[in-house]
Amino acid sequence: MEFDHMRKSALYRIANPKSIVFFGASNNFNRMGTIILDSLKALGFNGPVYPIHPKETRVLGYDAYPSVEELPETPELAIIVLPTNIVIQNLEACGRQGTRHAVIVSGGFKEVGGKGPEMEARLKETADRYGIRFLGPNCLGVANPHHRLNPTPFYYDAQPGFIGLASQSGSFVTQMFDYLAGFGLGFSTAFSVGNEANIDIVECLEYLGECPHTRVIALYIEGIQRGAAFMETARKIAQRKPIVALYIGGSEAGRRAGFSHTGSMAGPDELYEGMFKQSGIIRAASLTELFDFCWALGTLPIPAGNRVLVQTHSGGPGATAADACDRDGMVLPELSSRTVEALRPFMPHTGTLGNPVDLTFSKSPMDYFAQVPSVLLEEEEGDMLMIYFLAPTVFIERGFKQIGLASEKITVESEKMAIDAADTFLQVVAKHEKPVVGFTYRSLGESFTRHLTTNGIPIFPDPKRASRALRALLDYKAMQQHLAEG
Amino acid sequence: MEFDHMRKSALYRIANPKSIVFFGASNNFNRMGTIILDSLKALGFNGPVYPIHPKETRVLGYDAYPSVEELPETPELAIIVLPTNIVIQNLEACGRQGTRHAVIVSGGFKEVGGKGPEMEARLKETADRYGIRFLGPNCLGVANPHHRLNPTPFYYDAQPGFIGLASQSGSFVTQMFDYLAGFGLGFSTAFSVGNEANIDIVECLEYLGECPHTRVIALYIEGIQRGAAFMETARKIAQRKPIVALYIGGSEAGRRAGFSHTGSMAGPDELYEGMFKQSGIIRAASLTELFDFCWALGTLPIPAGNRVLVQTHSGGPGATAADACDRDGMVLPELSSRTVEALRPFMPHTGTLGNPVDLTFSKSPMDYFAQVPSVLLEEEEGDMLMIYFLAPTVFIERGFKQIGLASEKITVESEKMAIDAADTFLQVVAKHEKPVVGFTYRSLGESFTRHLTTNGIPIFPDPKRASRALRALLDYKAMQQHLAEG
Repeated sequence: MEFDHMRKSALYRIANPKSIVFFGASNNFNRMGTIILDSLKALGFNGPVYPIHPKETRVLGYDAYPSVEELPETPELAIIVLPTNIVIQNLEACGRQGTRHAVIVSGGFKEVGGKGPEMEARLKETADRYGIRFLGPNCLGVANPHHRLNPTPFYYDAQPGFIGLASQSGSFVTQMFDYLAGFGLGFSTAFSVGNEANIDIVECLEYLGECPHTRVIALYIEGIQRGAAFMETARKIAQRKPIVALYIGGSEAGRRAGFSHTGSMAGPDELYEGMFKQSGIIRAASLTELFDFCWALGTLPIPAGNRVLVQTHSGGPGATAADACDRDGMVLPELSSRTVEALRPFMPHTGTLGNPVDLTFSKSPMDYFAQVPSVLLEEEEGDMLMIYFLAPTVFIERGFKQIGLASEKITVESEKMAIDAADTFLQVVAKHEKPVVGFTYRSLGESFTRHLTTNGIPIFPDPKRASRALRALLDYKAMQQHLAEG
Repeated sequence: MEFDHMRKSALYRIANPKSIVFFGASNNFNRMGTIILDSLKALGFNGPVYPIHPKETRVLGYDAYPSVEELPETPELAIIVLPTNIVIQNLEACGRQGTRHAVIVSGGFKEVGGKGPEMEARLKETADRYGIRFLGPNCLGVANPHHRLNPTPFYYDAQPGFIGLASQSGSFVTQMFDYLAGFGLGFSTAFSVGNEANIDIVECLEYLGECPHTRVIALYIEGIQRGAAFMETARKIAQRKPIVALYIGGSEAGRRAGFSHTGSMAGPDELYEGMFKQSGIIRAASLTELFDFCWALGTLPIPAGNRVLVQTHSGGPGATAADACDRDGMVLPELSSRTVEALRPFMPHTGTLGNPVDLTFSKSPMDYFAQVPSVLLEEEEGDMLMIYFLAPTVFIERGFKQIGLASEKITVESEKMAIDAADTFLQVVAKHEKPVVGFTYRSLGESFTRHLTTNGIPIFPDPKRASRALRALLDYKAMQQHLAEG
C-alpha cells in the first residue's frame, strides 16, 4: 500500500463500501446480526444492502436473497455475523462471486482455543485464495459516520467527527458513540480489529494517517504483533498528525485479561513506553485521557511555549487550576504591566489582578467573554489560556422570573443570551493562534457550553483534565521536534 | 466545645438556625444579597426570615424591616451580604439585640490588602465583644439541605446527602450542588470558611465529625493555620469517619493563587502530605477524586483485603479495569474451581471464565444482574467486586420497536425492565458485606444506573476512577489500623 494512496488501501473499501452483502440478520431481534443490520439501516447507509437469508424474502425492510449467487450485483463488502462453523463456507461463496472485502464479526476462532486456531488458519487461507482482505474475526468491524456506515450493535448517535480509532476492543468503538456525543465529539472512522487474522492494527493506523476526516488518531492496544512496522508507520504519521495510545497490557492483570480477550501477546510496560516515545505517540493513562487528549490535539493549535494564563471568577477553581498546571510541568507567568493596566477597568474591587486573573464577578455581563480573554490572549507572557466557565445565565434567569416572564420565554431568552456570550467568546479566540481550554463543574449539555465545545473549545469537567490535555499538546510538540531531528 | 456535644457547637446554630435576619437583599436581582435570599427561599427554609431594608416593606415576599430594633424577635442567625463599609455597624446592631451567630458573606477585608486587614480586626473585635460566632468574611457560608437551609447564590438542586464539606472556597460549596446531583449525591452540610476570622476550618471539621448526617468529610484546603489542632481533631474523627482532602497549596502556582484568594498561608507539599498521613486523612489529587473517594467511602463497607473480581460482558472494558486495579496496587485473584463450576452454566461459549469474568453476552437476561454477581460475591478469593455496566435495555428497545410497540410504551416497558434488573442486583449485593462498584461509559442519568447509584452502588465513568476509589477504601482501612495502634 502506498502511503499517499488511501484509496488503494483495503480499508478504504471496508470503510467506504458502495454495496454490502449481510450474513446473519433476520427479523428476530434476539440475534446479533439483526441488531447490527438495524444499526446500519438506522444511520441511513446510502447504497444497496443485500441480506442473505435461507427463508425470509424481506429482512428489516430490505429484499433478502437465499444465497450470494442470486444477488443482482457483486457487493463490495461482506459483513458476516454467522455461527462460527458456517463462516468459512460463506466467505468462500463471496470470494467466488468476486467480493474482495469483508468484516467478520463472528467469534469462536483463535480466542477460544481448542479447534479455534485451526479454524482461523482455514479462514485466512480461504480469504487469501480469493484475495479477500478482512477485519476480524471476533470484532465489531468499522464505523464511518462520514459515509453513514455503522454495522455495529449500537446506534451511532453522535455527529461525524475528527477522531480516528483503531482498537483491539470492539466496545471501545461502539460504547464510545454515546460517550463522545456527550462532549460534542464523534469518530471520523473507527476500526475494531478483533483477532487481526488478516488486517491488523498497523494497517488501520496507516489508513487513518491518510484519512482526511481524521485529525487525530486514538489507539486502544492490548498487544502489538508487528512492532517494527507499527513504529515505522507511527513515526511517519506523528510528524503531521497526533497519535494517542492507551496500552493496558503492561500490568500483569492487564496482560492476562488482554490474552483471554483477543489472544494478543502483550509486552512489558517499559518496552511499550519506549516504543511509544520513539514513535512520537502520546500515551494516555486511562480511557478518559485517551479521548481528552484527542479532543485537545484535534482541536487546538500547538502552543509556542509552556506558559498558561488562568481566567476565573471563583478563587477555588482558579487556584485548583493553577496547582494542576504547575504539577503538570507548566508555568503560570506573572502578568505584564501592560496587561494589568488593560485589565484594570474590568476588575471589581474584590477581584485579583494576578495569574489566575480572578474577576470574582463581572461589572458588565460581557467582560468575562470578550474584553478579559481578549487582553489575556494578547499577553506576550502567555502561551495558553485556561478559563473557568459557568453558563452566563445562571443568575440572570432569576431576574427574568422575578419580573414575571413566562417560563418558556425565560428559556428562550436565556438560551439566546448564552449563545450570544459563547459567540462573542468564539470571535475573540478566533483572532489568536493560542490554545484555549475551559473547565466547568456543570453539565456539558448546557447550551452555552455545548455551543463552545461544538465550535472548537474543549471544556473539561475538571481543571486537572484540562491541564493534562494542555500538557499533551506540549508533549506532542516536543515529539514532533524530536522526530524532525531524526 | 465538647467533642460529643455537637449541639453546643457554634456551628450547630449556624447550620440549623430557627430564625434568620438577612442584610443586603432587595427586590433587585442585580444584587448578590437578593440572589442568596432567593435561594434560601427556594429550598423552603422552615422558619421566620427577616430581611432588613431601609425602604422596602416586602422583599421577595417576606415582610421587611428597616432595622433589627424593629424585629418581633431575636433571630438566631444573621446573614450579612452588605457593602464592606457597613458590615461592622450592622453586626454590632445584631449583637445589641442578642443575635449570637452570623454568616458574613461580604468581601473586601483581609484578602484585598490596604485597609482590609484593619477592618477585619475591627470586625473580629466587634463580634468578640458580643460573643458572636461567625463564618467569613468573604465566604458563601453554609448549606444544610437536611434543614432546608441554603443561603448561597446557587439553587440547591440535589438531594440531602451524606457528604460533609469544609472548604476554603465558596465555589466548592455552591458549584458542587449540580455536580453532585449528577451522581445522585448531595451534601449533608457544607461550610465555606472564607477568611476564617472567627470560625476556622478546624472547627468545621470538628462539627462534621459529630454531625449524624455526615458519613464522610471532604476538605478543600489552601492552607491550614492551626496545624496542631487540625491534626488532633482529624485523628480523633478518622478512627470512625473517613476524611478526604484536596490540598492545592503545595505547588508554587497553587500557593500564590491561594494567597490572593483567601490570604491563606500554604506550606510545602511534603509537609501537608505528612500531616495528612499522620492524621489519617486520605489525599485526593483532584476535585474529581475528592468526591469520588467520598462517594465510595460514604457508601461502601471496608474490604477485608485487596483482591478484586471484575465482571464484564466486553473484553476491552474488562481488561482496562484489570489493568487499572493492578496499577493501583490491588490483586486480581484467579477464580476458585468452585466458582468456575458455579459460573459455567451461565457462560456462553464465547465467554471467558477467568478474572475478569467476561460473559460477552447473557444467555438469559438476568444472569448478569443476579446469578453471576451472586457467585462472585460468594467467592472466598475475592474481597471486592467491580462490574462493567450497560443499561440492560440497550438492545431490547429495538425488539419492542420492531414488533410495533408505541414509543411511549417502549419507554415505560424499558424503564420497568431497567429498574427490575437494578433491583435484582441490589438484592444480591445486600446479601454480602463486600464493596461493589460499577463503571460505565454511558450517561449516569440513565434510569438503570440512576437507580443503582441512588441505592448505594457507586458507578464511575471510567474503570480508572472506580479503581482509585477502591484503593481509597484500602487506604482508609490501613490508616484506621495505624491510628488504632496509636
